[in-house]
Amino acid sequence: MTAVTDRFPLPDLADIAPDIRDKIVAVQEKSGFVPNVFLKLARRPDECRAFFAYHDALMLRENGLSKGEKEMIVVATSAANQCLYCVVAHGALLRIFEKSPLIADQLATNWRKAALTARQRAMIAFAMKVATDSAALEDADFAELREHGFTDEDAWDIGAIAAFFALSNRMANLAGMMPNPEFYLMGRVPREKKG
Amino acid sequence: MTAVTDRFPLPDLADIAPDIRDKIVAVQEKSGFVPNVFLKLARRPDECRAFFAYHDALMLRENGLSKGEKEMIVVATSAANQCLYCVVAHGALLRIFEKSPLIADQLATNWRKAALTARQRAMIAFAMKVATDSAALEDADFAELREHGFTDEDAWDIGAIAAFFALSNRMANLAGMMPNPEFYLMGRVPREKKG
Amino acid sequence: MTAVTDRFPLPDLADIAPDIRDKIVAVQEKSGFVPNVFLKLARRPDECRAFFAYHDALMLRENGLSKGEKEMIVVATSAANQCLYCVVAHGALLRIFEKSPLIADQLATNWRKAALTARQRAMIAFAMKVATDSAALEDADFAELREHGFTDEDAWDIGAIAAFFALSNRMANLAGMMPNPEFYLMGRVPREKKG
Amino acid sequence: MTAVTDRFPLPDLADIAPDIRDKIVAVQEKSGFVPNVFLKLARRPDECRAFFAYHDALMLRENGLSKGEKEMIVVATSAANQCLYCVVAHGALLRIFEKSPLIADQLATNWRKAALTARQRAMIAFAMKVATDSAALEDADFAELREHGFTDEDAWDIGAIAAFFALSNRMANLAGMMPNPEFYLMGRVPREKKG
Amino acid sequence: MTAVTDRFPLPDLADIAPDIRDKIVAVQEKSGFVPNVFLKLARRPDECRAFFAYHDALMLRENGLSKGEKEMIVVATSAANQCLYCVVAHGALLRIFEKSPLIADQLATNWRKAALTARQRAMIAFAMKVATDSAALEDADFAELREHGFTDEDAWDIGAIAAFFALSNRMANLAGMMPNPEFYLMGRVPREKKG
Amino acid sequence: MTAVTDRFPLPDLADIAPDIRDKIVAVQEKSGFVPNVFLKLARRPDECRAFFAYHDALMLRENGLSKGEKEMIVVATSAANQCLYCVVAHGALLRIFEKSPLIADQLATNWRKAALTARQRAMIAFAMKVATDSAALEDADFAELREHGFTDEDAWDIGAIAAFFALSNRMANLAGMMPNPEFYLMGRVPREKKG
Repeated sequence: MTAVTDRFPLPDLADIAPDIRDKIVAVQEKSGFVPNVFLKLARRPDECRAFFAYHDALMLRENGLSKGEKEMIVVATSAANQCLYCVVAHGALLRIFEKSPLIADQLATNWRKAALTARQRAMIAFAMKVATDSAALEDADFAELREHGFTDEDAWDIGAIAAFFALSNRMANLAGMMPNPEFYLMGRVPREKKG
Repeated sequence: MTAVTDRFPLPDLADIAPDIRDKIVAVQEKSGFVPNVFLKLARRPDECRAFFAYHDALMLRENGLSKGEKEMIVVATSAANQCLYCVVAHGALLRIFEKSPLIADQLATNWRKAALTARQRAMIAFAMKVATDSAALEDADFAELREHGFTDEDAWDIGAIAAFFALSNRMANLAGMMPNPEFYLMGRVPREKKG
Repeated sequence: MTAVTDRFPLPDLADIAPDIRDKIVAVQEKSGFVPNVFLKLARRPDECRAFFAYHDALMLRENGLSKGEKEMIVVATSAANQCLYCVVAHGALLRIFEKSPLIADQLATNWRKAALTARQRAMIAFAMKVATDSAALEDADFAELREHGFTDEDAWDIGAIAAFFALSNRMANLAGMMPNPEFYLMGRVPREKKG
Repeated sequence: MTAVTDRFPLPDLADIAPDIRDKIVAVQEKSGFVPNVFLKLARRPDECRAFFAYHDALMLRENGLSKGEKEMIVVATSAANQCLYCVVAHGALLRIFEKSPLIADQLATNWRKAALTARQRAMIAFAMKVATDSAALEDADFAELREHGFTDEDAWDIGAIAAFFALSNRMANLAGMMPNPEFYLMGRVPREKKG
Repeated sequence: MTAVTDRFPLPDLADIAPDIRDKIVAVQEKSGFVPNVFLKLARRPDECRAFFAYHDALMLRENGLSKGEKEMIVVATSAANQCLYCVVAHGALLRIFEKSPLIADQLATNWRKAALTARQRAMIAFAMKVATDSAALEDADFAELREHGFTDEDAWDIGAIAAFFALSNRMANLAGMMPNPEFYLMGRVPREKKG
Repeated sequence: MTAVTDRFPLPDLADIAPDIRDKIVAVQEKSGFVPNVFLKLARRPDECRAFFAYHDALMLRENGLSKGEKEMIVVATSAANQCLYCVVAHGALLRIFEKSPLIADQLATNWRKAALTARQRAMIAFAMKVATDSAALEDADFAELREHGFTDEDAWDIGAIAAFFALSNRMANLAGMMPNPEFYLMGRVPREKKG
C-alpha cells in the first residue's frame, strides 16, 4: 500500500503554543483522541486560533438551526468539495447528533435521497448553491427559505456554514489531511453509546 | 421526516418468477436479508435475469483483478454518479473483501486520497474516465495501464465494470432504490466477523 | 490516413460459441452484413449473451413506446455520450422505423430542434436527464411525463433504455468499436426500399 | 408532428436587395436549391453582406488547408456547439470535397474516432480549443501545430474558421435555422455523382 | 516580467491596404491612439474589412437598443469568454456611453449584481444564453424578452451582438491581442471629460 | 435603475461592539472611507473578529510572498468565484502595491494573459486549482511550485489565501455586498498619489 498523501509535518506537542495545546488536551480528554485538524493547523498558531474562533462562532451559536442540521450542511457541502476529512469527521458528529447511523452516508452520496424534512431539504439546497455557485444567488433563493420558515438570519447562518467549510475543505485538501480512523465508526452502532 | 424517494412498488414474493425467487431466497439465506436491488428489479423478470447474468459475468469472472479491486471500481464510479444504493451496498462488500473498514469511504469521497497501490490508482483513474468521459479514451490510457502491469484484457474488465455500473447507477437513481440498512455497517467492526 | 482506433482483435467465426454464432448468422442473413457489435462482444461469450438478452428485453418489449421512439432515445442519449457506433447504427434503425431520412441527424445534433411531437420531446428530455444527471431525478420529472400521457411503467422503459445505452456507449468507446459502413446510408434514400 | 422551431419570417425574394438576390440566384443555379442561410440572413442586408464576405475570405482563401480540411473544422466545431444547420449543410460539403461518405458523421459525433491523419487530428484539436476554451490557448498549442507542419499563418486560418463558426452556429441557433432536406443526403451515394 | 502573449507580428502602417489605413487614421484622429484590434486584423485585409463591416452593421444600427446597452452585451459576454481585449476596450466605451464609471466592472465580474433595469437584466440574460449555450435557446427565452418590451427584431439584435463577439473574443484570444493601456482608464474620471 | 442586491441591513455605528468600532474608525481615518465589508460583517461580532483575525494572519504575515503577490491571488481567485466586492476592492490594493494600473483587470479577466513573471504564473495556477478543484491537488502541483523557487510553506500560504477567499467570496455573494465606489478608481491614476 502506498502512503497516503499527508503533507506538512505535524508539530511536536511540546512546540505547540500553550493556549492551543490546552484546547487540544481538552478535546483529547473528551473524545479520547486528537482530531488531526488540530495538530495540522497548530503549525500556524494565528491561523489556527482564527479558524477555531470562526468555527465556534458558527457551529456553537444558538440559533434557528439544530446542532444536527448544522452538521448536515457541513457533510453535504464537504462532499461536493470531495473533502475526505470533513465528510468523515463531521459525518460522525452528524450521526451522533441526529442519532441516525444512516443520514451521513446519504447526505454525502446524494443529498436529494437523504431522509430529510422538506424544511431541511430547502436548507441543503440553499447551502449547496452557496458552496458551488454563490455568484448566482438571488432573492428567490432567500424567498424559498422563508417559505420553509427560515428567517434571513437563518439564511446567513446556513450560507456562512457553507462558506466556512468552503475554506475548511480547501485547507484539508491542500494539507492532505486524513481523518482519524476513530471517526469512521462513531455513531454507527447505537449500543456502543450505552453500558 | 419525509418518506424517501422510493419509486415503483415492490412485487409480492409470491408473484416473482420461480427462478428469480430461488435466487433471492439463496441470497437471503447467505446474507440474512434480501438486498433491495433484487426485489426492485424482479418486477421486470427478463431485465432482472439479464442484469444479474451480466453482473455475474463481470464480477465473478476469475481474472487479473481481485474481488476487492472489482469493488473498488464499483464504489469509485458509483460515487461519481452519486448512486446511493451502489456506494453503500458495494462499499460493504469492498470493506469485507479488503478487510479494511476505511477504504470504501475514502474511495467514495475522493479516490485520489484513498490508501491504494500505484497499480490500483491507475486502475481507478482508467475506470473513472470510462465512467465520466469515455469518448475521450485514447491509446495512451491503455498504455498507462500496461505500465502498471495490466493486460488489455484487464483493461476490458476494468472498463466493462465501470460501464455496467453506469447502467446500474442510473437504474437505482431512476427507481429511487434505497440501500438496506444492514449494508451501512457491514465490514466496519472487525470483531463482528468472529463468534 | 491513420488507422482508426479499433481495439481488441475480433475472434474468428469458427471460435465463437455456437449459440452466439447462430445469432450472428441469423442477423447476417436478415441484414446482409454482421454489425460489428456482435463480433466485438463475442470475444466474451457470457457478457455477450447478457448484453443481448438485456437489449432484447428492453428494445423488443411491447409497451407504450413505438419501435421508432425507442430508437429516438438511443440516438439522442448516445450522441450525448459521443458514441459513434450507436449514433450511426441506431440512427439507421431510427430512419427506417420512422420512415424519416432526417430525424436521426436532428436528434444526434440537437434534440431540441428535432421534428418531434410534444410527447416525444418530453420523453427525450427525461431520457437525457437519466443519461447525463440521473442523481438529480425527482418526482417532478415523473409528473412531467404523466402530463404527456406516459405511465410510470413507461417512465421505467424510457429510463432503462437510456441506462442500458449508458453501458453500451461506454463499451463501444472502450473497445474503439467502429460502425459498419452500411449503417451510414440505411434509411436515407426512400426509393432504395422499393424494387 | 409539431412545427420545428424556425423563427423570423423569410423575406420575399422580390424584397431582397438586388446584390444579395443575385448571389442567391447564382447559388440556386449551381446547387439546385437555395440554402436556408441565405434567405434567413437576407432579412438584414448589411449583416448578410458582411457574413458572406467574412465566410468567403476564410473558406475560399488559398492557403495551407485543403477545402476538405476547412470543412472538417466547421463540422467538428459546429457539433460542439450543437448547431444542426451547420453540421448538416457543411457535412454535405465535407463529404463531397473529401469524397468520403463517412467522414462527416464521424467528425460530428466524436472527432477523436474520425479517420484523420495525425496532422488533421492536431488541426481539429486546436480548432476545438478555439471553439470551446479559447481563453486557455497558450504558446504550447501553437508549438503542437508547428510539429505537424503548420505555420503560424495556418494557425490563424484554423482558429479563424473556428471563430467564424462560433458566430455562425449562434446565429443559426438564434434564428432556429433548419437545414434544407437536400443537404442530408448529398455526398453519401458515390454513384449520384456520375451520370 | 515576462513578455505578454502577443502573437502575430503587426504590419507596418505603410504596408496596410489604403482603405483600411484611412479607417485607422480616422480612428486615431478621433481617439488619439490606434486600438490594437485594427492593426492586428489589418494583417488580413479581406477578413478585416468583413469584421468591421459586420461590427458596424450591428453596433451602429439604429434600433431598440441604446449605444450603452449594446456595449453592456459586449462586456458581459466577453467576460464569459474571458476576453481581455474586449472586456477592457468595450468596458471603456460602456462607461462613456452610460456616463457610469462603475457599470463595466460590475458587468464583467457578475452581471447579476450590476446596476441594471429589469429590462436590461432580461437583455443580458438572453445574451449570455446565446454566448454560452445557444443550442438550448427556446421560444420561452423570446417570450421572456417580449415581457420586457423587446420585439423579436430586438431579440435578433441582442443575439447577433453576442454571436459576433463570440467570434471577436476568439480572434482576440487566438491572436493574443492586448488592450491599449489608454482603454483601462477611459470613462472612469468624470472630470477628465470636461475642459 | 433597480436597486442593487444589497441584503441584510447594516448596523448603526453606535450599536457596533467597541473593539470592532475602533478598528473601523482606524480604517476610516487611514482610507478616508469605511469599506463595506466591515459594516456588513459587524452585524455578527464573533464572526467578524474571526474573519479579520484570519485575514490578517494570512495577508499581513511576512513570508515568501510580497504584498502585491498576495493580492494577485485574491483577485484571480475572486474573479473565478465572480465576487464583485473582492475583485474591485482587492483590485484597488493590487494596483497600489504593484504600482501598476493594469494588472488587476488583467488578472480578473484572464490570468493567463496578465503581465506576470513565470514564478507568479505558477503561483496563480496553484491558487486557481485550490479555488476551483482542490480535491485534485496532488504532489506534482507542489513539485511545480518548488521548481519556481517556492517552499512548501509558501505553498501553504498560496493555498490558504485562496481558501480564505473561497470563504470571503461566498460571504460577499451571500450578503449581496457591494464595493464602495472609491475602490473602482484607486491606483489607476499614477499622479493622484502625488501632491
